[in-house]
Amino acid sequence: MTYSYNHLFTYTQSILEKIGCPPADARLAAEVLLSADLRGVDSHGVARLSGYVRLWEKGRINAVPNVRIVHETPSTAVVDGDGGLGLVVAPKAMQVAIDKAKNVGTGWVSVKNSNHYGIAGYHAMMALDHDMIGISLTNASPLVSPTFSKERLLGTNPIAVAIPAKNQPPFVADMATTTAANGKLEILQRKNLDAPLGWVQDKDGNPTSDSNGVKKGGALLPLGGDREHGSHKGYALGAIVDILSAVLSGANYGPWVPPFVAFLDPLPNLVGEGIGHFFGAMRVDAFRPADEFKAHMDNWITRFRAAVPTEGNEKVLIPGDPERELEIERKENGIPLLRPVAEDLTALGEKLGLDFQSFG
Amino acid sequence: MTYSYNHLFTYTQSILEKIGCPPADARLAAEVLLSADLRGVDSHGVARLSGYVRLWEKGRINAVPNVRIVHETPSTAVVDGDGGLGLVVAPKAMQVAIDKAKNVGTGWVSVKNSNHYGIAGYHAMMALDHDMIGISLTNASPLVSPTFSKERLLGTNPIAVAIPAKNQPPFVADMATTTAANGKLEILQRKNLDAPLGWVQDKDGNPTSDSNGVKKGGALLPLGGDREHGSHKGYALGAIVDILSAVLSGANYGPWVPPFVAFLDPLPNLVGEGIGHFFGAMRVDAFRPADEFKAHMDNWITRFRAAVPTEGNEKVLIPGDPERELEIERKENGIPLLRPVAEDLTALGEKLGLDFQSFG
Repeated sequence: MTYSYNHLFTYTQSILEKIGCPPADARLAAEVLLSADLRGVDSHGVARLSGYVRLWEKGRINAVPNVRIVHETPSTAVVDGDGGLGLVVAPKAMQVAIDKAKNVGTGWVSVKNSNHYGIAGYHAMMALDHDMIGISLTNASPLVSPTFSKERLLGTNPIAVAIPAKNQPPFVADMATTTAANGKLEILQRKNLDAPLGWVQDKDGNPTSDSNGVKKGGALLPLGGDREHGSHKGYALGAIVDILSAVLSGANYGPWVPPFVAFLDPLPNLVGEGIGHFFGAMRVDAFRPADEFKAHMDNWITRFRAAVPTEGNEKVLIPGDPERELEIERKENGIPLLRPVAEDLTALGEKLGLDFQSFG
Repeated sequence: MTYSYNHLFTYTQSILEKIGCPPADARLAAEVLLSADLRGVDSHGVARLSGYVRLWEKGRINAVPNVRIVHETPSTAVVDGDGGLGLVVAPKAMQVAIDKAKNVGTGWVSVKNSNHYGIAGYHAMMALDHDMIGISLTNASPLVSPTFSKERLLGTNPIAVAIPAKNQPPFVADMATTTAANGKLEILQRKNLDAPLGWVQDKDGNPTSDSNGVKKGGALLPLGGDREHGSHKGYALGAIVDILSAVLSGANYGPWVPPFVAFLDPLPNLVGEGIGHFFGAMRVDAFRPADEFKAHMDNWITRFRAAVPTEGNEKVLIPGDPERELEIERKENGIPLLRPVAEDLTALGEKLGLDFQSFG
């Protein structure tokens, strides 16, 4: 079934207010969460709302965090998220990066003591309105095995980069550093389909096409899939995201990153606080006049989009094209939710005294 | 045959002085070039020396460049390489990034009007001695097709990131954003071996195992290999490198990047000047005390290195491990050169009035 943006937005906001989030925070978190649903990253949208609430019930999310800078220089800061929703902590930290970029050209913020921050691209895209390039990274619960490892030591650790253009829409890359994001696997699981080789290894570290392989003790594979196809590069990228997000800020890294699911407890003897993010903002005119840069971005985008396509493919895409098209479509026609997701949202409301349908 | 580091270093320096490079520049360029040979990236070392000289003969390299900052803010700069050797321009630009980081926490430098800068990792590693994280990116001649494209629009556009540790050796990732670097293909070509599927497409955009496929009008493939295995992510990474290196600085980007080989002329109607690089330096103590950070890096490295390995693999590697081990070995036992490379170096000396063997 399909739900309007406003329906899901006001419901999400109300749920978050019910658990004690200040209205402005609830609004901000709803906007971040819904941007995932709009852009087709359904695994990071309202489908996760009840998961955040369960973490709050366990005392692992602070609904009224004091998000603050604990260390800074003119171009850098470490932000302590005070255990708040990543959906709130992240845009506040990205705003710090943007403010620093206004002053000295660029701003770089590493965040500790946070939680899952939703869709990486949202935070990077905050830079676009300021004619800045935005960067957003986060670590996440360990589901990924480095090349040659049986153990899961990294999250899907995404990289998002947003770059403004002039008349063309912006360039927005937003990617897990694994061959495929976990959400892609979940789609196959629901349909009882196999996964392509190169996505998953089993618990012994062998390639498997079992789309439930991760649940059975296996792991997601770094971008590249195997050593011969460059998985050591995907591993290195995931590692860089982990280090900038967490070793730099004082958050947990690698296998110590606390799980998103509330039924799994964090490891004992944690090495830091919460999970970590990393944000960057670079003023385009700190390098060359913004108009000149954006005109060349238009030329870059136009040239790549005009590339001769391979047989069976209509055209070459620019990163962000599919998500933007879906966003326009879903804003107009609504957001489709799978039945279990809608049921989960309904049950969540019943628990907290809200009627999901009445928000429509 | 094997040659000592000093033999190849002094010879390279002398050749570069013969074409008019100031002694300090020739020394710096030799150090950068030789670091590739030491670290096993043989395709980017002395094997390329005659190629640089041919570009100089064509008037496409300026031996006495005035490398200068043309625009700056407290944390950023654009450097004009004045057509100099990338081997000289790049470390000078990286030094600008380091100096800015000393002042305001981080430094970010985009470079135009440069040439091939050798091994990406060298420049990133310059940050390590200053307890900084170093980043080094460059665009390169178009050999790579974006996902769904028959045309070659990107270079192998590497990403290098160097991160200091305390008692452990540093974390040094240095990777092409393609499944395999061109140098890996050249090894297969010399041995008349096929390439794994996912490395190369033929001129019609179909997967091929022909290791000579690129020479026959095909292309290298972005990391991931095909859409199902995430090649759109490798494409996006290569694109980000291209944009930060060239659209931000005013260098040529995409298909306009001038070829390294002197027998191919640059395209008419160029969109910028020369090729572009991008460098970053972040002071670790701009985020948290350096000692604390480096102790946690030791813990990160130790934990990952101790991961249970998969069947048939001895251990999990940390990015930079293989190159560092080779560097120690080659510094001690010398650098092996293939016969054609040694012959090429000899011929180069004969042309410029130097005897390769006499430097031994």
